[in-house]
Amino acid sequence: MTELPPRSPELPSVQLEELRALIDEIDTALCELLAARFGLTQQVGQYKADRGIPAVDPEREQRQFAKIMELAQQFGLDPDFAASFLRLIIDQVVVNHKTLAEQVSSSQSSTSCL
Amino acid sequence: MTELPPRSPELPSVQLEELRALIDEIDTALCELLAARFGLTQQVGQYKADRGIPAVDPEREQRQFAKIMELAQQFGLDPDFAASFLRLIIDQVVVNHKTLAEQVSSSQSSTSCL
Repeated sequence: MTELPPRSPELPSVQLEELRALIDEIDTALCELLAARFGLTQQVGQYKADRGIPAVDPEREQRQFAKIMELAQQFGLDPDFAASFLRLIIDQVVVNHKTLAEQVSSSQSSTSCL
Repeated sequence: MTELPPRSPELPSVQLEELRALIDEIDTALCELLAARFGLTQQVGQYKADRGIPAVDPEREQRQFAKIMELAQQFGLDPDFAASFLRLIIDQVVVNHKTLAEQVSSSQSSTSCL
């Protein structure tokens, strides 16, 4: 994984391009983490689809939003930004879960016709 | 930084709560990285504000969107999701840069009145 640069380095003389190179490194790390996250939620989706559990889980969502607010405070993120970020992720996860559930359901129908 | 779990572990029998605990760890790491990123963009904002450079930089944005599409492909992220994710971050950065520019401008006006 890409190494995390210092959070708030004191580099008043650093050039714009150097800062941007560090930002680009973080973007790579963020995408890697998001891919890992979607890999895990895909497993959750499979678990749910296999058991016929609905893709949307309002209680889990509520806990996740409470948790992201704590994290926003811990790391000094804007709370509205943090909530929008989590909403974006969850919306994508729900789309993925529904697709997966349809595939499982379709596969089960095919099997039951044999 | 929180250790990155394996991207696509083969754990068919793993329990839902275990998967969710790993997801929560990733969310913590994501927030930490986002905070580091906003720390760096704040320095970019200061650099721009000190030199009267506009907060919005369409060419840089264009390069960033091209880069995030490459990263989406590299890590198997949905391209629309990746673009929305970057848009969310950039919008927040621009708000922060404008606030900073107003503060610098206001501080310079006060100084010129002395």
